[in-house]
Amino acid sequence: MRFAKKDVLDMESLSVEEIQAILDTAETLKEISTRPIKKVPTLRGKTVIHFFYEPSTRTRTSFEIAAKRLSADTVSISASTSSIAKGETLVDTAKNLEAMNPDAIVVRHRAAGAPHMLARIVEASVINAGDGMHAHPTQALLDMMTVREKKGSLAGLTVAIIGDITHSRVARSNIVGFNKMGATVILAGPPTMIPMGIETLGAAVSYHVEEAIKDADVIIVLRIQKERQHAFIFPSEREYAQCYGLTKEKLAGAKDDVLIMHPGPINRGVEIAPEVAEGPYSVILEQVTNGVAIRMALLYILLGGPR
Amino acid sequence: MRFAKKDVLDMESLSVEEIQAILDTAETLKEISTRPIKKVPTLRGKTVIHFFYEPSTRTRTSFEIAAKRLSADTVSISASTSSIAKGETLVDTAKNLEAMNPDAIVVRHRAAGAPHMLARIVEASVINAGDGMHAHPTQALLDMMTVREKKGSLAGLTVAIIGDITHSRVARSNIVGFNKMGATVILAGPPTMIPMGIETLGAAVSYHVEEAIKDADVIIVLRIQKERQHAFIFPSEREYAQCYGLTKEKLAGAKDDVLIMHPGPINRGVEIAPEVAEGPYSVILEQVTNGVAIRMALLYILLGGPR
Amino acid sequence: MRFAKKDVLDMESLSVEEIQAILDTAETLKEISTRPIKKVPTLRGKTVIHFFYEPSTRTRTSFEIAAKRLSADTVSISASTSSIAKGETLVDTAKNLEAMNPDAIVVRHRAAGAPHMLARIVEASVINAGDGMHAHPTQALLDMMTVREKKGSLAGLTVAIIGDITHSRVARSNIVGFNKMGATVILAGPPTMIPMGIETLGAAVSYHVEEAIKDADVIIVLRIQKERQHAFIFPSEREYAQCYGLTKEKLAGAKDDVLIMHPGPINRGVEIAPEVAEGPYSVILEQVTNGVAIRMALLYILLGGPR
Repeated sequence: MRFAKKDVLDMESLSVEEIQAILDTAETLKEISTRPIKKVPTLRGKTVIHFFYEPSTRTRTSFEIAAKRLSADTVSISASTSSIAKGETLVDTAKNLEAMNPDAIVVRHRAAGAPHMLARIVEASVINAGDGMHAHPTQALLDMMTVREKKGSLAGLTVAIIGDITHSRVARSNIVGFNKMGATVILAGPPTMIPMGIETLGAAVSYHVEEAIKDADVIIVLRIQKERQHAFIFPSEREYAQCYGLTKEKLAGAKDDVLIMHPGPINRGVEIAPEVAEGPYSVILEQVTNGVAIRMALLYILLGGPR
Repeated sequence: MRFAKKDVLDMESLSVEEIQAILDTAETLKEISTRPIKKVPTLRGKTVIHFFYEPSTRTRTSFEIAAKRLSADTVSISASTSSIAKGETLVDTAKNLEAMNPDAIVVRHRAAGAPHMLARIVEASVINAGDGMHAHPTQALLDMMTVREKKGSLAGLTVAIIGDITHSRVARSNIVGFNKMGATVILAGPPTMIPMGIETLGAAVSYHVEEAIKDADVIIVLRIQKERQHAFIFPSEREYAQCYGLTKEKLAGAKDDVLIMHPGPINRGVEIAPEVAEGPYSVILEQVTNGVAIRMALLYILLGGPR
Repeated sequence: MRFAKKDVLDMESLSVEEIQAILDTAETLKEISTRPIKKVPTLRGKTVIHFFYEPSTRTRTSFEIAAKRLSADTVSISASTSSIAKGETLVDTAKNLEAMNPDAIVVRHRAAGAPHMLARIVEASVINAGDGMHAHPTQALLDMMTVREKKGSLAGLTVAIIGDITHSRVARSNIVGFNKMGATVILAGPPTMIPMGIETLGAAVSYHVEEAIKDADVIIVLRIQKERQHAFIFPSEREYAQCYGLTKEKLAGAKDDVLIMHPGPINRGVEIAPEVAEGPYSVILEQVTNGVAIRMALLYILLGGPR
């Protein structure tokens, strides 16, 4: 397949063929990270700028490692040290970065749509590393890769997503992605955390975790943003854990070969019990490993060939 | 030309021949950043330390990209994470860095003269990336490169610099640099922002922007440091914009082929109107592109040959 | 000698032969940093994560330069930008880093034992870059390398360590290390800064600096942590300097060929007089140079061969 896009911004704009091509490429490249010499010269002389307006160890580290294993040069910019502190607009920052001839800009931003705006302005490839509550396509792609590895295919599977759906870009990207690949998505969480009309994205809704996970092949547990507690969206961590936290007891009603996933970092004992996070069904760490592979694949596909 | 200097600290200490050699080298190296493989092995195995006591995305990123495109290894140190938080003197920090055998130290510091002091202490090449209100030679060099590219030569040109001259290291370095290359410099800005006796550096002074830009081949608009507003150096942004901001109206009286420049980041609608910053005369983004080339040239000249 | 360990966590767990192998390797690798091309391809394709929960310019820079001179890829994570801000446990962070297939994790942490815990969890090699008041083995190794270079051997030497022994991981690691190599260690400092029972580690104690340094071949002056002053551990800097600061006057009673060392950054005029820090006996900057060599040696030994 010929990948014609310049950017990877969300799951909506990726075709089924493109998603398959990304997953296939990631599966091939994954092996590089297990070699004694974890490095191929593919992207030698390419410049990748990691531009993180929001702090994120795991995503930035994953992207940086991915770029370096392909031999790209990387430069890392964080909001606190950047010109935005000096009042520069994102458009101006983007144009300035562009003028330094980067090949790709990986961007995380608190404002939904920021990466899309950036992509329109710059010639470099833009990869969305998470924008506001909108999209986190590399997370969805690594989730889908992990499921496909374990289940062979995505079509026909049931994926339950548990937690604060309203504020989750991970949920949004996964709903669209899994749907596109023929899986059925069911959402569960407190009523205050499930937005009205989310069904139009192609997901069923349940307010009971047990019901949502009963037929699930995959359970994606979302991280609770503790800071939202003060907004009275949920009353207490303990209460949340009791009603919506994924415990061994709740899991008793699930399928025998269910996969447990979490985008991390986890709040142990809140949205997920430690023994579930580390239990036999958990593929949480494989998600992390696949994250590097997915990011290598995107850089490889976007920058590796003639365009 | 044989470049005998160890350091690049200010425009005063560079000869006309040295400036020409830097601009010529930068012009040659600029092409590397447009190649599919933007990298040459010239500085492989050289260690460049970027030591920024003041935050600066664009300058640090520009230097880092320059070093990496020449295959140097880079290490980045910022004030907040450094030993100065532990009360170490700059001299001791410098000696310690030196003991790790770097080939170059790129330094930005709030104290004028800090890079000069560093240069006396260490054997490594020191490049001044901006010190206090004193000098910013790489900015002046990239400005001169941009003008020379567009105008063919610098001799005989008139360069207007508009804004807060008093607090601007960019102004200071440009006055000296353009003068040295045979250009005439005229300054304009509020009286409170033009230091007494600046004429001795070789610049004319005007208090009216229209007058200053009338015969200018190049207009360099300086960034207004909003934080100085509280010092009552200027009354309000709106008033500043009206009197000294470069607008389309004020530009009406300028030459047909005038170049508009700005060191960035710009305050849209304050010192420069958006339609001017993005208008046909603006070469602001070419300055950024040339910034990488100038920094490559300096690293190449200082570290690339036997010394 | 075959180095069988996965990690370097403290001096206690290193055998005499292992210490000798590290020092020998460091001596050989030291020369690389003086070459025009300061780089060997030994660790090409290895990933080294520098994980610093406490800020530290010099140690992080030293490790980064060491890794890069061996051609390893490096990723740097600091506490402020990391997931611990999001409440993740160290165990979870470690497992996540591990899932990205690093070859080594260099860790500095305020909690004693954190690197040991990390080492048990991950397959990657862990190097302790300082944990709480517990251990700082790379500092001890570079100190021992510096002494061995100057004195030819460590056996039979007398090493005086002056300062706040109680809170010093440097002291702890040096006591164990020098002892192991056959040197005699004597400690001096205010009674409030020398822990009861420290003799069991194999060190003599004195409360008078002059007495402690009288027969010393090496004097290691420890940094005073000014923040401890508020804890009334010592009354004032001036008083400390007078009683325990290493001055020219106190040095008068020392051996003719004594070596003066300090882990840096120094408080000039507090624990050490400037003329002593820069005097003829001082090897403080050679310690810094050897720091790079020791860290290259550890990375080389742990990652360089088949394991």
